[in-house]
Amino acid sequence: MTLMSGEQYVESIRKMNMQIYMFGEKIENSVDNPILRPSLNSVKATYDLAQLPEYEDLMTTTSSITGKKINRFTNIHQSTDDLVKKVKMQRLLGQKTASCFQRCVGMDAFNSVYSTTFEIDQSCGTNYFDRFVKYMQYVQENDLTVDGAMTDPKGDRSLPPSKQKDPDLYLRIVERKDDGIVVRGAKAHQTGICNSHEVLVMPTIAMSPEDKDYAVSFSVPVDAEGVLMIIGRQSCDTRKLEGSKIDVGNSEFGGMEALLIFDNVFVPNDRIFLNGETEFAGMMVERFAGYHRQSYGGCKVGVGDVLIGAAALVADYNGANKASHVKDKLIEMTHLNETLYSCGIACSAEGHRTKSGNYIIDLLLANVCKQNVTRFPYEIARLAEDIAGGLMVTAPSEKDLNDPKVGPYIKKYLQGTADVTTEDRLRLLRLIENLTLGTAAVGYRTESMHGAGSPQAQRIMISRQGNINHKKNLAKAIAKIEN
Amino acid sequence: MTLMSGEQYVESIRKMNMQIYMFGEKIENSVDNPILRPSLNSVKATYDLAQLPEYEDLMTTTSSITGKKINRFTNIHQSTDDLVKKVKMQRLLGQKTASCFQRCVGMDAFNSVYSTTFEIDQSCGTNYFDRFVKYMQYVQENDLTVDGAMTDPKGDRSLPPSKQKDPDLYLRIVERKDDGIVVRGAKAHQTGICNSHEVLVMPTIAMSPEDKDYAVSFSVPVDAEGVLMIIGRQSCDTRKLEGSKIDVGNSEFGGMEALLIFDNVFVPNDRIFLNGETEFAGMMVERFAGYHRQSYGGCKVGVGDVLIGAAALVADYNGANKASHVKDKLIEMTHLNETLYSCGIACSAEGHRTKSGNYIIDLLLANVCKQNVTRFPYEIARLAEDIAGGLMVTAPSEKDLNDPKVGPYIKKYLQGTADVTTEDRLRLLRLIENLTLGTAAVGYRTESMHGAGSPQAQRIMISRQGNINHKKNLAKAIAKIEN
Amino acid sequence: MTLMSGEQYVESIRKMNMQIYMFGEKIENSVDNPILRPSLNSVKATYDLAQLPEYEDLMTTTSSITGKKINRFTNIHQSTDDLVKKVKMQRLLGQKTASCFQRCVGMDAFNSVYSTTFEIDQSCGTNYFDRFVKYMQYVQENDLTVDGAMTDPKGDRSLPPSKQKDPDLYLRIVERKDDGIVVRGAKAHQTGICNSHEVLVMPTIAMSPEDKDYAVSFSVPVDAEGVLMIIGRQSCDTRKLEGSKIDVGNSEFGGMEALLIFDNVFVPNDRIFLNGETEFAGMMVERFAGYHRQSYGGCKVGVGDVLIGAAALVADYNGANKASHVKDKLIEMTHLNETLYSCGIACSAEGHRTKSGNYIIDLLLANVCKQNVTRFPYEIARLAEDIAGGLMVTAPSEKDLNDPKVGPYIKKYLQGTADVTTEDRLRLLRLIENLTLGTAAVGYRTESMHGAGSPQAQRIMISRQGNINHKKNLAKAIAKIEN
Amino acid sequence: MTLMSGEQYVESIRKMNMQIYMFGEKIENSVDNPILRPSLNSVKATYDLAQLPEYEDLMTTTSSITGKKINRFTNIHQSTDDLVKKVKMQRLLGQKTASCFQRCVGMDAFNSVYSTTFEIDQSCGTNYFDRFVKYMQYVQENDLTVDGAMTDPKGDRSLPPSKQKDPDLYLRIVERKDDGIVVRGAKAHQTGICNSHEVLVMPTIAMSPEDKDYAVSFSVPVDAEGVLMIIGRQSCDTRKLEGSKIDVGNSEFGGMEALLIFDNVFVPNDRIFLNGETEFAGMMVERFAGYHRQSYGGCKVGVGDVLIGAAALVADYNGANKASHVKDKLIEMTHLNETLYSCGIACSAEGHRTKSGNYIIDLLLANVCKQNVTRFPYEIARLAEDIAGGLMVTAPSEKDLNDPKVGPYIKKYLQGTADVTTEDRLRLLRLIENLTLGTAAVGYRTESMHGAGSPQAQRIMISRQGNINHKKNLAKAIAKIEN
Repeated sequence: MTLMSGEQYVESIRKMNMQIYMFGEKIENSVDNPILRPSLNSVKATYDLAQLPEYEDLMTTTSSITGKKINRFTNIHQSTDDLVKKVKMQRLLGQKTASCFQRCVGMDAFNSVYSTTFEIDQSCGTNYFDRFVKYMQYVQENDLTVDGAMTDPKGDRSLPPSKQKDPDLYLRIVERKDDGIVVRGAKAHQTGICNSHEVLVMPTIAMSPEDKDYAVSFSVPVDAEGVLMIIGRQSCDTRKLEGSKIDVGNSEFGGMEALLIFDNVFVPNDRIFLNGETEFAGMMVERFAGYHRQSYGGCKVGVGDVLIGAAALVADYNGANKASHVKDKLIEMTHLNETLYSCGIACSAEGHRTKSGNYIIDLLLANVCKQNVTRFPYEIARLAEDIAGGLMVTAPSEKDLNDPKVGPYIKKYLQGTADVTTEDRLRLLRLIENLTLGTAAVGYRTESMHGAGSPQAQRIMISRQGNINHKKNLAKAIAKIEN
Repeated sequence: MTLMSGEQYVESIRKMNMQIYMFGEKIENSVDNPILRPSLNSVKATYDLAQLPEYEDLMTTTSSITGKKINRFTNIHQSTDDLVKKVKMQRLLGQKTASCFQRCVGMDAFNSVYSTTFEIDQSCGTNYFDRFVKYMQYVQENDLTVDGAMTDPKGDRSLPPSKQKDPDLYLRIVERKDDGIVVRGAKAHQTGICNSHEVLVMPTIAMSPEDKDYAVSFSVPVDAEGVLMIIGRQSCDTRKLEGSKIDVGNSEFGGMEALLIFDNVFVPNDRIFLNGETEFAGMMVERFAGYHRQSYGGCKVGVGDVLIGAAALVADYNGANKASHVKDKLIEMTHLNETLYSCGIACSAEGHRTKSGNYIIDLLLANVCKQNVTRFPYEIARLAEDIAGGLMVTAPSEKDLNDPKVGPYIKKYLQGTADVTTEDRLRLLRLIENLTLGTAAVGYRTESMHGAGSPQAQRIMISRQGNINHKKNLAKAIAKIEN
Repeated sequence: MTLMSGEQYVESIRKMNMQIYMFGEKIENSVDNPILRPSLNSVKATYDLAQLPEYEDLMTTTSSITGKKINRFTNIHQSTDDLVKKVKMQRLLGQKTASCFQRCVGMDAFNSVYSTTFEIDQSCGTNYFDRFVKYMQYVQENDLTVDGAMTDPKGDRSLPPSKQKDPDLYLRIVERKDDGIVVRGAKAHQTGICNSHEVLVMPTIAMSPEDKDYAVSFSVPVDAEGVLMIIGRQSCDTRKLEGSKIDVGNSEFGGMEALLIFDNVFVPNDRIFLNGETEFAGMMVERFAGYHRQSYGGCKVGVGDVLIGAAALVADYNGANKASHVKDKLIEMTHLNETLYSCGIACSAEGHRTKSGNYIIDLLLANVCKQNVTRFPYEIARLAEDIAGGLMVTAPSEKDLNDPKVGPYIKKYLQGTADVTTEDRLRLLRLIENLTLGTAAVGYRTESMHGAGSPQAQRIMISRQGNINHKKNLAKAIAKIEN
Repeated sequence: MTLMSGEQYVESIRKMNMQIYMFGEKIENSVDNPILRPSLNSVKATYDLAQLPEYEDLMTTTSSITGKKINRFTNIHQSTDDLVKKVKMQRLLGQKTASCFQRCVGMDAFNSVYSTTFEIDQSCGTNYFDRFVKYMQYVQENDLTVDGAMTDPKGDRSLPPSKQKDPDLYLRIVERKDDGIVVRGAKAHQTGICNSHEVLVMPTIAMSPEDKDYAVSFSVPVDAEGVLMIIGRQSCDTRKLEGSKIDVGNSEFGGMEALLIFDNVFVPNDRIFLNGETEFAGMMVERFAGYHRQSYGGCKVGVGDVLIGAAALVADYNGANKASHVKDKLIEMTHLNETLYSCGIACSAEGHRTKSGNYIIDLLLANVCKQNVTRFPYEIARLAEDIAGGLMVTAPSEKDLNDPKVGPYIKKYLQGTADVTTEDRLRLLRLIENLTLGTAAVGYRTESMHGAGSPQAQRIMISRQGNINHKKNLAKAIAKIEN
């Protein structure tokens, strides 16, 4: 079963015994919960599409460990071509779900931990790499969805882990035993956690020797004892409770985030991949961030494609598609979206082999990619709102549309061009609302801003990777300034 | 009672018999409806603040008609100083409500209809101006809130009123009687309609002779027979039904929009201010749009002040307020916000007297003002999301916070700097969410885009008012090109 | 002679005995020097226009000191109306010269020194104010052009005046005598210095007690002993030596800048306006910067008008004026230019009376004004280059155009629309080149960036003036956070 | 001699008998002309660097035609790796010359004509491809620099070629003979023409059947009878006549453009590659434009590297390098520059094989690349001006610096940090001036705008290539709208 079907995946999640809380209640059946189900569907799409012949080349590949056919989301990248295909797969999924499909973070964690453990072992004589390869084999054989977990709550951001008033504000080892460790802390903003089988934890910042207990990486099942998730509210989340098909904008797919608590969780030795080697925390963080910043040059572009399409279509429905300013705005949206894609492709094509043998993106260009993602989706969304018209935020509810008394008024007065039903026009406007203000805006806007690191994190990396001294020397040579 | 108290205002609305529909149901008591009440509170603030001595100069003035003290929202502007104070009053209200307070559209309609009826009478020998002055006296004496209504549904935007498949897609006169007219049609996006006493209707575009039945302006009470309103959904609207104080972001104030239906409504002669004089439809539209584009240089600036303050405060709570990039982003937000304000002030200070004696803004600069409003609030919102961090879209619900089981985890792990409670941090993040994605984002973002005319409408006016030929002559003079 | 004619002005400058150096040579006759003359013509325009009845209201006013009619450039502002008219006068001059007309800096210095000396006297018991009023009377009676001088060379910008390796890198008092002081140092980027009668010196930064010798303000004639100016190179400066009428782009007007040296210059007591009162250096700097940042909302807007006109005209000449993207770019240029103007007007209209009785702009809005000026002219220039087409940087020289061998080829092949001569097309393209790359780009671009303080200087002021605590309290009130 | 040395190249150009005109005079010796020599040096660098072992992989490759080692500038691309290396070679040359090195346009023409002639032959039974392969063999064997020539003067842009008042405003065949054709017309903005051996002419727009005489592609030596070039003026061109080493900013390298006249030039049959097959004019244009838009993602990035280095260095010299806003601006410049590079890499990596066997870039992404190049260099230049300070446009001349009288003042007062000479500071400022306002600004700014097609040309291509219908279908699928 190296390739599960979508249905098999759903059932595998149903069998897990997760501790999920939402609106002050424990959720016993997340799989059928109307607020959470769309996010499960998005992950399910990563299984469904892998079954389709037309996407086989993008969605699957051959395992470098077992030689078997695997889902690309569990792949250890073997070439720049793999890196490029990763981005294309992400764009495809974005197009099909118009959501965050959540499975990338694990893929990016796999590849970061893979190469980093190899280098730790080389330097420290540990044997993390073998452990991790075995773990990856388990993941690939079972086609698991694994959530990567990096972001600690951080408390007072002006203070390092060991100086926080509450020492648990960064996740840490609270006990070391013969057969494993006990950890305590939390990871915030965990995308897809309730739709995952395992969670692969990494540190969130580079560390100094006094942070030894904070330098930890490991994996546990998401239903391990002491693991608990509190679902985050999304804009418009409860519309999904109304039984709506139209007002939700995207009735099938969505994303989710949670605060993930580790309340004294035991991790057995064979699942520990970093344990106190503080000098390698930074490498793991930087590589994960790099891969994940590349990812945004794929997934958000796919979502952008849907939004551009929706804007173009609503212009048709409004009878405004011939207006030169509308055409020009669609071009601008396309231009911005393809610029993001170019950055995703470029950092992939310019990738290189690590010591461990897998491939990593060009770090400078991956950071440039993400930095653009913190800007352009906002402008694409703004232009979509411009084209859509004010009705996207003032349209009556689906219940009104279907009401025998006021429904006819709505159908009469909110008619656009004569060949389109008012209902279809409203469906489209609700999709645009969903992407710019609603549940999907959480992923398309704010996550574009903060996911894989906030804008300033990329700027620091751009500064470090930009080789400004080389550029100074170029200038000196032209200006004939002697050194 | 030329100045009602806030409470008197609320009771006056309660007495009206409006036909309001929402979620497929008739709302019998809009005043106490949890979704609508915050919007009433925002209008109420225009009455409350007028009672306070410290705001007397901004909030009240002396009627040019009766010589009595009136609320500035019912004023016919007598000077550029009046125009400037209007903008300052709007900024104040934006600061106090962080919402659309809805009463401007009537004020802008008053001043447009006032000067236009004067010029119609001069040209056509009609007596609309006297009628309108009497109407204004009634409004001032009773301190009424009047909604201005301009935007027809428009159907297929590539077609003029008379060419639409359904002739009612622009509001029109369907019958002319001795004592009045009967009108049919709708007005979309009606801000504040359920919190108003009267609605003052104007045409939505310049018209040609064949549009005679569409060239109509009048006022009726909002509970006149045949008037019906269907409330538009806002992002996160139903959070207000949860009994939440935190998750709603702004528990006291809000805005509302509705589709307003005129189903064969009778208008008596003394409330008709335009009736077939198609050549003046454009003047009325242009003046109203001009005043209303000025307005945005006040109200949105006030809301921006709240958002900037919230971002600055959340930086404090995150322990990030010393970071130079955070300080720089707050400066940029302030810069953009004050640029909007400058445009609001400038078009007011450069205003001039109309033939009727009231004052009107500089049309070019008012359009420039609004054009900037279609851009900068989006960038201010983006920067606020940047400073806030991802938690603004992944934080658990208020119910979780107060839950005995998971609440303690949230309080522990979502603590920011040690001196601030997690609850206060969440309150602030919810306010930012409210303004950037939630109910207030409808007003701060999409209404900034489309209210008072979409961006392209301003560009057309900028083109017309920019006097490009004068500029060409300046260039010829410098380049020594003979004409 | 409180109003000199342009010709009288030119002759008054001719009579002075300035020490001017350029290209390693002393310029004996700056008035007829082809590189410098256009800059003189721009100042001359401030006299010429003051003679014309149609500009009387803008260009002249009544002296608050003598009651006589004076040029507005020597005015002490008596109202916000004066402040607004100042901006309008500057826009007019920008339109007529498409250059920096240089006389504003003195006007802004007058008003800053006026109010600051009043407050020094109040605080320190000095009598600078009376001295300064007498000086102003002399300036007004003789209709003088005075250059304000603020910017010291600054050396190593990370060090304060007294810590520089060379103590002269900020101008300072080197000797105190009974009848006056001796000063040494330099002022950089002195616009219009060789076209001025006097130079009014001010300090360049706020100072602490140890900077006593650097806290000095005074005026001397520009031909005082020890005063020396070295003309700065402008892009394309030497085209003016070619006898060209076309290639220079603007054959009549221009600007100039110089490094101004004070090599042990004696200043008599009655021309000293600050002498060691370090605590007032900051006030003088801040006020001057504020006035001068307002100025840019007038002068650069006028130059922008010419550039917009040139772009519109070249679109006509290219046969491209019907293209929707060209029309849209002209609208955008107009929009940006009028936004600058709005900022200039707003900070004026919101001005207030100082203790001394003159009027000063709103400091926050003046800094916002200038901050926009560091951005929008660049974008306007970019759009002008877009519309102009590549020919603006690849067109052959005027000499080629007039050459019997190659001229006919140029006339044939560089013809645009049939109704316009190739020569006129080239004239226009050269004007655009002049404003975007040539001598005038120094004023329209780089001076827009750095004149009246570099962008970061405005940001610091915006931060200080933005009252962020008030905004935080607004946010707390909405979010119901107790203090 | 498949690889000429730089010196051999210079001598090969010296031997040619070109008709070059500048400032109304015939230039008999362009190689030693001080205005033109820097542009020759830039082309020479393409030969010099090909001799260096460290650049062998980028600068040279193996001919697909002869199997010999050739300069990459004469390569027919055999893979996406070739396309990527092309971009890297261009970035390198940009870094080394800080100029337009002119040889790309020929390389891009080679590859466009190569694949297009193959498809013409397939469709029309012609034998252009064989001819062109022989021509390429000649070019490669002799390591020639060939100028590609596309841009006709176009006259009235609202009219097609055959409707212009003067039929020669697009280059055309005026006579057909047995052994060849005679052509008349001009090509504008010809970069590098006087430093080339041959010129390869292509049409400038897609054509319809009535444009048969305009659908022509051919190559002739640049000194063929009837070929004549008139050099275009660049900003600050004549500084190079002053004997300056400092004031020119870049004393060694530069670019040049000319109006190229074809006054009844005979073209022999074996050099004709398109002759009336109007239906293929568009393909040739589109492919050339595509390749050339890719090029800008390399060359301008290299120039940007120099400008960023210069800005960083001047911050050091000013003592401002620790200021957070300066560091942030350098990051922004780097970010923008690397975004351009990402686009250059992405359209290359996503290239594909044509029917003829050579490789072509992804057209959509190449247009996106160039569209960004019309924006970001302007912003990079603006930020460089910001960091440099006003001195870059007000510094005295080199002659003043070296003058015994005023030189000491300049050295004293324009000293920056104590460890750097004033001369070096001025050298650097002049380099920044050169790139933002001077001769190199022609290439870095205006050519970035208009080279390889003006912005609107890219927008049209983005619209055509963006597959908006696919995007509409994606949106329909998500919104559950039936087709």
